[in-house]
Amino acid sequence: MSQFVQSIIYEKGTVTILDQTRLPQEERYEVIHDLAQAVEAIKQLRVRGAPAISLFGGFVLVQEAFRTTGSLDEVKQKLLTVSTDLLATRPTAVNLRNVLDELNQLIVSATTLAELPKRLEQKAIALYEADAKTSRQIGVHALELFQAGDRVLTICNAGSIATAAYGTALAPFYLAKEQDIPLSVYASETRPLLQGARLTTWELQRAGIDVTLITDNMVAHTIKEKQITAIIVGADRITRNGDTANKIGTFQLALLARAFGIPFYVAAPLSTFDLTSLSGDEIEIEERAATEVTQFSGQVTAPAGVSVFNPAFDVTPHELITAIITELGIIERPNVETIEQAIGQQII
Amino acid sequence: MSQFVQSIIYEKGTVTILDQTRLPQEERYEVIHDLAQAVEAIKQLRVRGAPAISLFGGFVLVQEAFRTTGSLDEVKQKLLTVSTDLLATRPTAVNLRNVLDELNQLIVSATTLAELPKRLEQKAIALYEADAKTSRQIGVHALELFQAGDRVLTICNAGSIATAAYGTALAPFYLAKEQDIPLSVYASETRPLLQGARLTTWELQRAGIDVTLITDNMVAHTIKEKQITAIIVGADRITRNGDTANKIGTFQLALLARAFGIPFYVAAPLSTFDLTSLSGDEIEIEERAATEVTQFSGQVTAPAGVSVFNPAFDVTPHELITAIITELGIIERPNVETIEQAIGQQII
Repeated sequence: MSQFVQSIIYEKGTVTILDQTRLPQEERYEVIHDLAQAVEAIKQLRVRGAPAISLFGGFVLVQEAFRTTGSLDEVKQKLLTVSTDLLATRPTAVNLRNVLDELNQLIVSATTLAELPKRLEQKAIALYEADAKTSRQIGVHALELFQAGDRVLTICNAGSIATAAYGTALAPFYLAKEQDIPLSVYASETRPLLQGARLTTWELQRAGIDVTLITDNMVAHTIKEKQITAIIVGADRITRNGDTANKIGTFQLALLARAFGIPFYVAAPLSTFDLTSLSGDEIEIEERAATEVTQFSGQVTAPAGVSVFNPAFDVTPHELITAIITELGIIERPNVETIEQAIGQQII
Repeated sequence: MSQFVQSIIYEKGTVTILDQTRLPQEERYEVIHDLAQAVEAIKQLRVRGAPAISLFGGFVLVQEAFRTTGSLDEVKQKLLTVSTDLLATRPTAVNLRNVLDELNQLIVSATTLAELPKRLEQKAIALYEADAKTSRQIGVHALELFQAGDRVLTICNAGSIATAAYGTALAPFYLAKEQDIPLSVYASETRPLLQGARLTTWELQRAGIDVTLITDNMVAHTIKEKQITAIIVGADRITRNGDTANKIGTFQLALLARAFGIPFYVAAPLSTFDLTSLSGDEIEIEERAATEVTQFSGQVTAPAGVSVFNPAFDVTPHELITAIITELGIIERPNVETIEQAIGQQII
C-alpha cells in the first residue's frame, strides 16, 4: 500500500497525522500529544473523512490507554470518558461511534490492568488494516459499474487520505489505474472548506489519475457539456432505509443525476451504516461556524455581520440512490428490504 | 434614487466606476482614462452585470467621442473601432451589443463632427435613465409574484450595482422594502468570483433587506430546510425561445427548482433579449482563466497544474423557466410564441 500517502500513522503508542488543512501546499505531519490536541485535530478537520476519523479515534484511545494510570476501575472510567469526549467531536458521521463501541467493549470487559492497552492496540491496528482491505474491496465492486472512458463526478474527498488506503468513492479510480482502465474524474471543489479542490485533486493527480476541477455551481453544466456518465460519493452515515448523510452538496448532486438520467452511487464500508436509525430524518446535521463561509485563509469574502447558514452535511433520500457499494458488493435500489437482505446479518 | 450606490458615474465627458472587485471591503471609485483601461475594467469585472456593462460601454464610447480628433470620416471610423473593441470584451451578454448598436447608428448617420459627441452623450444618458426606470418596473412586476414572508433564493448579483438602480432579480426586494413587505433573500455565494457573497449580501444588507449567505452546494438542502418559496435570477442573454444564459450555476438552480416544485423566475430588461438567436444552442459561453478556480482571494487552493473547467455562464432551457419578468410585465411559460406575443414588436 506504499502508493498511498498515510494520513494516520500509529507507532509504539504514538499517533501522528497528516494535517489535511495544510494540503495541497504543505505535507506537514503532526504528532498528537494529548486528548485535547486530538479533539482539536478532529474539530479543525486536520484529520477528516468518516473512516479516517474513526481509525484516528481508536488510536487516540489506545495512546491514552498506555498513558493512563490508576486502579483498573479508575483506568476504565478514565478511558470511557476519553471515548465520550472523542465521540462528541462531530455528530454526523457514525463510523467513529462504531469503532469506539468496539473498543469500549474491551475496556468494560477487561479483567487485568496490564493487558488492557495491548488489547486495545491490537484491536485498533486490526481495524486499521481491515479498513484498507475494505476500501480496496469497495473499489473492486465499484469498478464493476464503470467502463473505460467513463467520466465520473465526485464531491468532497472520499479518497485514500479519508481512509487507511484507497478511499471509498475514489477507490475504483485507484483500481482502474492499477488495471490500466482509463477513467476521468471531475472533482467539485466543495465549499466552504474545499476538500475537493485541495484534497481530491491532490491525491488523484499524485496517483496519475485524470482529474478536472470545477466549482460546485458548475455541476449541471459540466454533466451536460462533458457528458458525465455517473456520480459517486462517500458517506458519513447510512440509515436502515438507505438515506445517506454526506458532505453538504451531495443531495443536490443526487437530484441533478436524476434530472440527467445518470446513475448516482454511494460508496461506503459497512461501518458507515447506522441500523439504529430508521431514516435520514433522525440524523443530526452538524452546523459549523459562519466564518468558514465568510472568510478563506483569513481573507474576508463577505460583509461583516451577514447572516450565514453553514450546514456541514445533508441527507440524500434513498430513492435518489442508484446503488450503495460496500465491501460485500453492490446494493441496487437501496431500501429497508434490500439493505436488510444484503447486510442485515453482517452488522453490529 | 439616492438610496442606491452608483456603480457607474458619467459627468462632463468622464466615466467613473465603483471597482466591484474590491467590494465588500472597500468602496473605491476609479476614473476611466482611456479605452484600454475601460476594456480591462470589463474583463477584470471591475464593472459587471449585463445592463451595467452596456451602460458603461455607452459612456466610454461617448468619452472617446469627445476626445477623438480628425475628419468626420476618420472620427466615425475610429469610434466604430472603439465600439468593436468594447463589444469584444465579453461574448455572452447581449445588452452591450444592443446599446452599442444604437450608438453605432448615430455614428454612422452623423453629418457634422460638432454634433456627434453631444448626440451620443444624450443617447447614453437617456439609456442610463431608462435603465433605472426599466429596473424599477421589473421590480414592480416581479413583486406581484411574491407574498409577505416569502423566502427567495438568488445567485450572483443582479442587483442595483449591476444596473443603473434597483437591479433586475433584486429589484422586487427593494420595492418590497419601500412598501414594508417582509421578504427574505438567500444568496448563493457564486464561485469562483463570489458575486453573491461579496456584492448581493453587501447591497441588500446596506438597504436593510433580510439576506442569508450560503455556498453554492447548499442550495438543495437550503430549499428543503428553509422552505424556499421561489428562485429568481438575472440574465445575460435570452434567445427567441426563452432559453437563458446567465451566471454559471443558474442551470442547476432551475433543475433544483423543478425537483422541489417551486417557481423559477428570470428577471431581465428587454435589452437582454437576443431575437437573432433561435435557442440557447447558439450562445457562445465565455470560459475564463483556471486561476479563478485554483485560487481564492489570492490564496492557492488546488495543486499546481491541475486541469480546470471554468465556464462563466450556462444556459437554462426555457422549459425550466416558470416566467420571465420584463419591464412590460410577466411572460409565463416562456417559449417562441409567448415571447413573440409579449414583446415581439417592442424589440429592435
